[in-house]
Amino acid sequence: MPDLTPDEFRERAAAAVEWVAAYRAGLPDRPVQPEVAPGSVRAAFPAALPEDPEPLDALLAALDRTVVPASSHWQHPGWFGYFPANASLHSLLGDLFSGGLGAQGMLWSTSPAATEVEQALMDALADALGLDPAFTFGGGGGGVIQDSASSAALVALLAALHRANPTWRDDGVDGRDRVYVTAETHSSLAKAVRVAGLGARALRVVGFRPGTSALDPTSLAALIAEDRAAGLRPVLVCPTIGTTGTGAIDPVREVVDAASGAWVHVDAAWAGVAALCPEHRDLLDGVERADSFCTDAHKWLGTAFDASLLWVRDARALPDALSITPEYLRNAATDSGAVVDYRDWQVPLGRRFRALKLWAVLSGYGLSGLRAHLRGHIAWAAELAGWVADEPGFTLAAPPSLGLVCLRLDSDERTRAALAQVNASGRAFLTHTVVDGRVVIRVAVGGVTTEREHVVALWEQLRKAAASG
Amino acid sequence: MPDLTPDEFRERAAAAVEWVAAYRAGLPDRPVQPEVAPGSVRAAFPAALPEDPEPLDALLAALDRTVVPASSHWQHPGWFGYFPANASLHSLLGDLFSGGLGAQGMLWSTSPAATEVEQALMDALADALGLDPAFTFGGGGGGVIQDSASSAALVALLAALHRANPTWRDDGVDGRDRVYVTAETHSSLAKAVRVAGLGARALRVVGFRPGTSALDPTSLAALIAEDRAAGLRPVLVCPTIGTTGTGAIDPVREVVDAASGAWVHVDAAWAGVAALCPEHRDLLDGVERADSFCTDAHKWLGTAFDASLLWVRDARALPDALSITPEYLRNAATDSGAVVDYRDWQVPLGRRFRALKLWAVLSGYGLSGLRAHLRGHIAWAAELAGWVADEPGFTLAAPPSLGLVCLRLDSDERTRAALAQVNASGRAFLTHTVVDGRVVIRVAVGGVTTEREHVVALWEQLRKAAASG
Repeated sequence: MPDLTPDEFRERAAAAVEWVAAYRAGLPDRPVQPEVAPGSVRAAFPAALPEDPEPLDALLAALDRTVVPASSHWQHPGWFGYFPANASLHSLLGDLFSGGLGAQGMLWSTSPAATEVEQALMDALADALGLDPAFTFGGGGGGVIQDSASSAALVALLAALHRANPTWRDDGVDGRDRVYVTAETHSSLAKAVRVAGLGARALRVVGFRPGTSALDPTSLAALIAEDRAAGLRPVLVCPTIGTTGTGAIDPVREVVDAASGAWVHVDAAWAGVAALCPEHRDLLDGVERADSFCTDAHKWLGTAFDASLLWVRDARALPDALSITPEYLRNAATDSGAVVDYRDWQVPLGRRFRALKLWAVLSGYGLSGLRAHLRGHIAWAAELAGWVADEPGFTLAAPPSLGLVCLRLDSDERTRAALAQVNASGRAFLTHTVVDGRVVIRVAVGGVTTEREHVVALWEQLRKAAASG
Repeated sequence: MPDLTPDEFRERAAAAVEWVAAYRAGLPDRPVQPEVAPGSVRAAFPAALPEDPEPLDALLAALDRTVVPASSHWQHPGWFGYFPANASLHSLLGDLFSGGLGAQGMLWSTSPAATEVEQALMDALADALGLDPAFTFGGGGGGVIQDSASSAALVALLAALHRANPTWRDDGVDGRDRVYVTAETHSSLAKAVRVAGLGARALRVVGFRPGTSALDPTSLAALIAEDRAAGLRPVLVCPTIGTTGTGAIDPVREVVDAASGAWVHVDAAWAGVAALCPEHRDLLDGVERADSFCTDAHKWLGTAFDASLLWVRDARALPDALSITPEYLRNAATDSGAVVDYRDWQVPLGRRFRALKLWAVLSGYGLSGLRAHLRGHIAWAAELAGWVADEPGFTLAAPPSLGLVCLRLDSDERTRAALAQVNASGRAFLTHTVVDGRVVIRVAVGGVTTEREHVVALWEQLRKAAASG
């Protein structure tokens, strides 16, 4: 058969590894963000696929010629855009094992290790984060790796719909379900609401506590009471720990009280992993009373996409909402009730052995290494925030939050110009948001190779850009 | 920072590659399916995560001790269960590049190459499969890599809901939408219907053509007419090319006629890739008139999970249904309308550069190699079917379909006993289904290392098992 033999793989993989190592080593010398004309990469591809096998060198050459120059270098130390997308070299090793095993972990019985390693790691990581034991399999709940926080929010919503309405599985939604967010909640919640068939009208946008970007529990309680009185069904509330815009933190404990029985899904996609550090454990205050909690290993915890970590308090909640078993998936282990079938914890049937890349990160960094990774970024962001606060013409657009600093100049035009100038330099990459109607630069410190010196250099660039603007 | 340096990565990756190569080389000597007691893998894990970094050797030792003995070996040449889950060694190289680049391809602007390589490959692959040019970006449609055929079916359904009902995005579903399948349609359609909030009642099960397991277009037309007359809204019809149970093929061309305007999503998750061979091109007859088409590269096209290939006729269909743009995702390229933002073609926001593993397969095998891969399996399955047909006591439970042979003995007990005996041998692994109320063994020939000799050996085992039963 025409696959590589193990020996051919040894040889080609050595070249592939060398390519990756050289790419990573060369990153500081590349512009972070490319200049690309739409369509230019496609235009470089031959219309027809190769009839005969090509040597790996041909693919490597195409990567160098076509792909790398048109890539945004998310692993560049000068990447400060969006949120980080850590793809540590540790995690690549784990993912290689996953591909090597090539197991399909849809059911426990289709590869027991794929399920149980994930269960074990999610239990241990819950403990390391200080999550309530109720979220572990030992405590009646459990964790699962999703592809993204978007999917985690979607399945949490589906479980909530099922819990709130026993006829949901058979009759579907009925127009009465309502979901509560703020204007700073991630757009994936609005997407989940749409996917689940509720329509945008089901999304209730709760106001902020005066002077903050955090959900106001009093307003939430009032809105829920109003909806209940109108015969509507409050299904899910989504407080955020670390909003995408500014890193704001909703008061989860008070949100749970105000939710009065609606499912509380805590979205801590970016910030949640910081709870590995005891000094940031208070981030998760109140989560012990929520129904589900999500944080991404693929943002700031070293693990290459995709590895979004979702814990639920009730291990039956997702299977009860999602399980459908045709004959060809029936098996003795499932029938015994003694195992977890992760296909019932997610939308797709198939699943990759993603726990291995998480394991490689946890093992390769150790908790001490992960804390050092997080603490470095947080300390440098705090330094940056101090410099911004002290600099005439600069304003902190929001309180700094962990590794995220939001800043602006004294006009939107000058802010936009500074952002454009830094990005055009190729030495750093920044993205923007809007806060209180004003354009704001987000500096998200968190790359796997980002050091203090890169933050210092970015600040110098920002100051120069402001002075020249 | 505590990630590996490129040099440390070179060293550790060499060991990781060696581990994978040795694992693959040793597969024929392992039992295909392990004996595992539920909970035993979890029990082998320490409760706490390591505080300090561990050497890679510790992880490798744990893989050998805990993971491999509890793994189902999907890449074993004796794997004939479910459908194949090809994870060719070629594809592992491509996935390594994806991890190396570590790009987040949610938007064109967040890494243009990640989007355009996928567009280019999906266009070229559409051509190689003989899909109508309308499914290419050049022809007004386009392709996208989803994680699974389940997700592909879900997003097709969402696009269909949006097309059928302009108020869906705002008001959600209203209880009138209906989706048409057969009893042999994959359970992911029932799951998609549930996820989308339609409820099980929205699923219409169309009957078979007499004497077949294929959808009866006359019954479909009648059911749709009846539903329309009752004020219901026929939204989507899902014909299957190669059902999971027996590989049956629904008559797509006639289904499109009978669908009378409902979205037709063709699920060819397993079988569709066979159209790379001109002699199997007729599998896709009628697909040129469908709205969407899905086939999995991660089943039988060499590519490690996840890589489900979805094409749609209308490039606006998915974005129109799914796009939601908060400020922090706004960018000039998106605003220009000149680019594809794949986040709007899927449920998750984030996405990995999955096109690289597909590219590595297409380049490494070449089309000729992929055809050889497919043709070998198909020829050996045909041989096996001939042997089954000729053997007293054995019955073909369905017409053989490409690489899938469904067989049974003269009682369910004997069929179950033979299946158990083969699986207990450790030399092959089979799964079952039920056809016409009888237990049936499915032999899915399609592994990346499965050769004729393995099919011959399986047949010897089956004959012996039958004789001893």
